[in-house]
Order: sequence, then C-alpha cells, then structure tokens
Amino acid sequence: MKESLYSHISTVRKQAPLVQNITNYVVMNNTANALLAIGASPIMAHAHPEMAAMQKICNALVINIGTLDEYWVESMLIAATEANHNNKPWILDPVGAGATPYRDEVLSRLIELKPTAIRGNASEIQALAKLNKTQTKGVDSTSVSTEAVQAGQILNKTYGAIIVISGETDIIIDGDQQVKIHNGNALMTKITGMGCSATAILAAFIAVIPNKTEAAVAATALMSISGELAARYSNGPGSLQVNILDKLHSIKEQEFEETLKISI
Amino acid sequence: MKESLYSHISTVRKQAPLVQNITNYVVMNNTANALLAIGASPIMAHAHPEMAAMQKICNALVINIGTLDEYWVESMLIAATEANHNNKPWILDPVGAGATPYRDEVLSRLIELKPTAIRGNASEIQALAKLNKTQTKGVDSTSVSTEAVQAGQILNKTYGAIIVISGETDIIIDGDQQVKIHNGNALMTKITGMGCSATAILAAFIAVIPNKTEAAVAATALMSISGELAARYSNGPGSLQVNILDKLHSIKEQEFEETLKISI
Amino acid sequence: MKESLYSHISTVRKQAPLVQNITNYVVMNNTANALLAIGASPIMAHAHPEMAAMQKICNALVINIGTLDEYWVESMLIAATEANHNNKPWILDPVGAGATPYRDEVLSRLIELKPTAIRGNASEIQALAKLNKTQTKGVDSTSVSTEAVQAGQILNKTYGAIIVISGETDIIIDGDQQVKIHNGNALMTKITGMGCSATAILAAFIAVIPNKTEAAVAATALMSISGELAARYSNGPGSLQVNILDKLHSIKEQEFEETLKISI
Repeated sequence: MKESLYSHISTVRKQAPLVQNITNYVVMNNTANALLAIGASPIMAHAHPEMAAMQKICNALVINIGTLDEYWVESMLIAATEANHNNKPWILDPVGAGATPYRDEVLSRLIELKPTAIRGNASEIQALAKLNKTQTKGVDSTSVSTEAVQAGQILNKTYGAIIVISGETDIIIDGDQQVKIHNGNALMTKITGMGCSATAILAAFIAVIPNKTEAAVAATALMSISGELAARYSNGPGSLQVNILDKLHSIKEQEFEETLKISI
Repeated sequence: MKESLYSHISTVRKQAPLVQNITNYVVMNNTANALLAIGASPIMAHAHPEMAAMQKICNALVINIGTLDEYWVESMLIAATEANHNNKPWILDPVGAGATPYRDEVLSRLIELKPTAIRGNASEIQALAKLNKTQTKGVDSTSVSTEAVQAGQILNKTYGAIIVISGETDIIIDGDQQVKIHNGNALMTKITGMGCSATAILAAFIAVIPNKTEAAVAATALMSISGELAARYSNGPGSLQVNILDKLHSIKEQEFEETLKISI
Repeated sequence: MKESLYSHISTVRKQAPLVQNITNYVVMNNTANALLAIGASPIMAHAHPEMAAMQKICNALVINIGTLDEYWVESMLIAATEANHNNKPWILDPVGAGATPYRDEVLSRLIELKPTAIRGNASEIQALAKLNKTQTKGVDSTSVSTEAVQAGQILNKTYGAIIVISGETDIIIDGDQQVKIHNGNALMTKITGMGCSATAILAAFIAVIPNKTEAAVAATALMSISGELAARYSNGPGSLQVNILDKLHSIKEQEFEETLKISI
C-alpha cells in the first residue's frame, strides 16, 4: 500500500473529481480552496430543488453538520439518499457530535443512510458510537485518537463505513485493516476547519481511487504531511493556513515519501 | 480608453462606493476584502425586510447565485427590483449556470430584471444564452472565453447588459465594442471565488464611473493585473489569494500601465 | 489595571473558554481562527433546537447581526434568553446599526435582553443610543470613536453593558471608568471583520476574567496591539489578516507591555 499512495495523489490531479459539499459556513472558503489545491473541483450547494440534479453530475458528496439547521438537515438527507440512488460515494463529517441532543438526533438519521466513510476527531467518533465517556467540549476533541479505535471499529462493523479518526496520530479503520499515520503538527489544531478540509480531500480521493481503503490512507497522509511540511516555515496559525494550501498544491513525490510515517 | 483606465481606479478609491452583496457563503470574506482593498465599502445583507432600505443607501448591488436557496432567491428578486426602482446598477454573477435546472430557472427570472452587467466564465455565459453545447462541470468552466463571444453578444443584445467573460483572455462586450484583456495567471483558477471578486469589483466601478464600458474594462484589468503581479511572488494558491488582496490595495499607476495587455 | 492585563491573556490561554458564536457569514472563518489563536475554543451554531443546550456547555455567547434574517434573529433571541437563564455572559455586536429600520428594530429587541457588553464602531454605538446625527454608511464608521463617548455612556447607564467603541482610539466605558487604548493601525480598517474578531475575543476574556472591565480592556488591547505589531511586516490588508492571526497566537509579555499605549 505504502508504495502506491503518491500515485493516488497523481490520479486525483489527473481526474479532477467534482465534489459537492453541504458543509458549514465557517470552513467553506478553505474547503473549496483545499479541493482546488489538490486538483479537484468543488461545488457548494444545498437548495432542495437542486439536490437530485447535483448528485447526477458530482463524483462524491461531503456532508458536514458543523452549522446545521432544519433546512440544511433536509438538504443533507435528500442529498445522501440521492447519492445512494446514483451509487456516488458520500462522506460524513460529524462535527460536534455529542455536543447537543439535536446534533446526535440528526447524526443518527444520517448514519442510517450508510456513508461510504466517516471522518472525525476522537470525541466525535466516540460520541457517534455512543461510547463517549468524557464530556464533549464543543467541536474540539477531548480524547486522543487511539482511545476512539474501539468506537471506530464498532461504527465500521455496524454501518460498513471506512472510519478516519484524526488526531496526533490519524487512524484509518476498514474491516480488519488498521493504518496509522504519524504525521502532522500540533499547530494545525489552532486553525479552524483542518478536519473539514481533510474530509473534503477524503471525498475527492474516494471518488476516483477504486481501492477505497487506500484512497482514505492517501488522502489522510496528504493532509497531515502537507501540514507538517508547511509548519516548518510558518509563524503561526494564520500563515500555516495559507501555507498548507500552497503545499497541498505543490507537494512532490520525493518530499511526500521522505516525510510519510505510516504503520500498517 | 486605455489612457483613462488607471484614473478610474483612482476614482473608486476616492469615491469609496458602498456595494451591497447578495453572494455565496464560500466567497463572502474574500469578496468583502477585495472591495475594501480597492477602496470600496462592502455590505452583505439578504434579509427580506431590509432589501428595499439597502437599495436606498448602496451605490451598486451584486447578485451571485453560488449557494442559492428559496429564501435567498426571493432576496435577490426583491433587491434587483428595488435597485431598478432606485436607478442603482446591479451586476449578475450566474455561478454554475447550466449545472442544474433550478439554477437555470432562477437565472431566467433574474435576467428578465435586466442587470446592468453580467460577469461569468465561458461555460456560464454560454449556458445563460442557451448556447451551451458542452456539459457544464459544476462551477468551473469547460470552455475558453473566446468560444463564448457569440453567447455574450446575444445576451448583450437581448438584455442590454454589459457582458464580461472571464478566462485566460477576459472579454468585455458592450454593443459594437469588444475589448480583450490578456492579463492574469493560470494559478488564479486554483483559488475559489476569483470570479466572484471580479464581479464585486465590477460593481464598485460601475457604481461611480459614468462610462460603464470603461468601468467594466478598468475593473477587469485591475483584477487580472493584480493576479498576474501577485503570482510572481506567490508559492501557490494560498499565498496568491493573500497577495492579490495586497496588490489590489497597493497597485500603482506605473506597474498597472506596464503590465496591461489590452486589445480594443 | 495596566500591570494585570497580560496576565489575563495568559488566563484565557490556560482556561480555553468555549465561545458560541451566532455571527455573520462574512467573518466566521476569521472569527473562529482568532478565537483559536488566543487559546479559546470556538463553536458556531444557530439551529433553534440546539440553542438551549449550547448555552449549557459554552462559557460565553457572541451575537453579531451582520447578516441577520428572520431565522437567525430568532436564534439570537433564544440564545440570549438562555444565556441569561444560565448566567452566561453574552456580547452584542450591532453591525450596521442605523443602516436599515429592520436592523434597528432587531437591535432594540436584543438590547432589552441586557448584553454583558456591547462592542461597535462609533457610528454603530451612536445609532444604538439614537444619538446618531450623521448618515450611517453601511457597516463602516463615519464618526470617530471619541464622538460616540456620550452615546456609550447612555447605553452603559441604561442597560448596564460594558461598552467598547472601536476606532483609531479604542474606548472602554463601564460606569465611571473610561479607558482609552491608542494602539492599532489604519490598515486594519481595510480588512473585513476586524471588529467582529475583537467582539469574539472580548467574549472569551469576559468568560474567564472575574473583573469584567479589565477583561474588556485586556481583550481590546490584545487585538489592537496584535494589529499594530503585525502591520509592521505586512504588505497590505491580505497579509495583515494572516499576520494578525499569527501575532494573536504568539504575542509575548514584553512586546505587549512595550507596545501598549493606554490612558486610564
């Protein structure tokens, strides 16, 4: 697997998948820019009358509940249902799972529609699996990713979704496979929406890479390695946000391979 | 015309027009910053109860359908109608025209309200003129701007709007006049919302420059030249987005004149 | 007071308050990043069914009316009422006060719910106190902050809110106390949402500093000093926006103390 990861990055650049995003207001600009930087094509849309048509033209769908409300929840349910009808992959980002009963109720309806993959931090994955034993603190994680492995395995087994747990160590769970990526930089937690960008990138990779486990690993590695490399010449979270976009666009095979720390 | 373009940039800086934007969530921050950078004053507002009052105080209106829904479409229709009543110019940005039937239906209602100008990429202008022969791919163009000239001419003739087609070559169409600007940089296509910023800048110029064709040419040249100059010292799309804002703010007459490549 | 301001910055970093934001679309990304940069934890949420639950877990609430509409106004009213029930501080940012009758009507309802603090520019504070004698121009101030002192004093006396007036000189009014901060840089007015970030930072400080007047002074000084320091090595508004985030995160006691210009 390790040898083919960079080739998947090249494939995304070549195939330029169209990713529809129903995501939160906070991150939309950065998410669109992250998708453009990796060579994908973003579209943000949520109007009920165009959800079915969008699922026909897009190659993957992101559903991120960060700033949900009743109208947007309905958009999400329509879009996920239509994605399933059209055999398009869709990725769930359960932002703030466990923070309020409303979020949990919405997530329980979305997860029944069987997302292709789920990406969240440890707290969110634990909340989603109803295994959360610590108090969730808004949208930031209060657990480390390794604590959420059991939760991720339950979710994978129950719903069939590939699980990506973001953290100091990123963990990808799919059936018996468990891959860990030890890249990234702590300063990334001081930028909003890094996880949301990771989810959108995951969608782009799953859209065009036939081996979906490898797609998830390549997408996750690309994000974490870009953050790690960009942090080397950033003065703080503001410049890191900018430099990650530059690096997502310019990253080359040699620096990717040399930086990658992976356990399979 | 060529000699007066920079003076129009100075006029916008001096007069600081107030531009109301009903635009998409993805680009709002960057659009507001682009307007501030050129010396204009942005306001984003969409509430039905304040649309009429806004048209009284603003100097121009931008309607950009990027993340439309039923409520926002109603805001757009009210605002465009009120802009017309108050003789305020309004500019239409038909983001994703042709991508879904819903967008096309909304655009057909908006265009009947006779925008002062329309700015889009080649695919969008072609879709708007129902001449689109290729499959639209989301919000990114699949055609080059020169292919959309005929579509632009039809739109100009039918609705009286000045047409700006963005692309490697930007084309401004107004009656018998056709102006081409050969500035910009390919990396601009890897940043979301560059077109949306161009539309907002166009609105600011049309608000205060009596010769509206020249206003459109000056606004388009300012955006493309700023992108071209900023790209010279940018490492990727992240830093280019930042550097374009800096350049929009700081650009001086000499570098503008020396960089401008225009065919009239 | 002057000696304890930096210690309040350290307290926010240590206690990492969770700040819920009902704010405008334009600034959400930058506001979330400003909160993360100072060590706080942001959450943006506006769904009616989760407003009560959010007030239980958050440490402070920001209500910013920049892009209000009927649904969001209802969210604001529910959230402010729940914040009061839970004895959580909430901060009002009256963006564009006086620009339309609708904004003023909404503000008159919100202010009756007695915000802990109000932060705005001079025009907004004057409009809020119905003392505005000049024509408001959208969201940018047409008055200097010193002209709004009387308005601020009336608001403070009538509603009990700490008043922060942003401008070339920032003025904090609380009862008989009036503190002026003479930091900042004119280029900050060319970036959208600097005031909105200042409001969010104010909320984070008020959430964890018992002396709320000092909290307001420390928050305001942090923002203005960070802007002043960042402007020294910025090429324009684009890079200044980025550099302010870096500086909010990295600012150290010595540079804070050396830069601070305060009149108490």
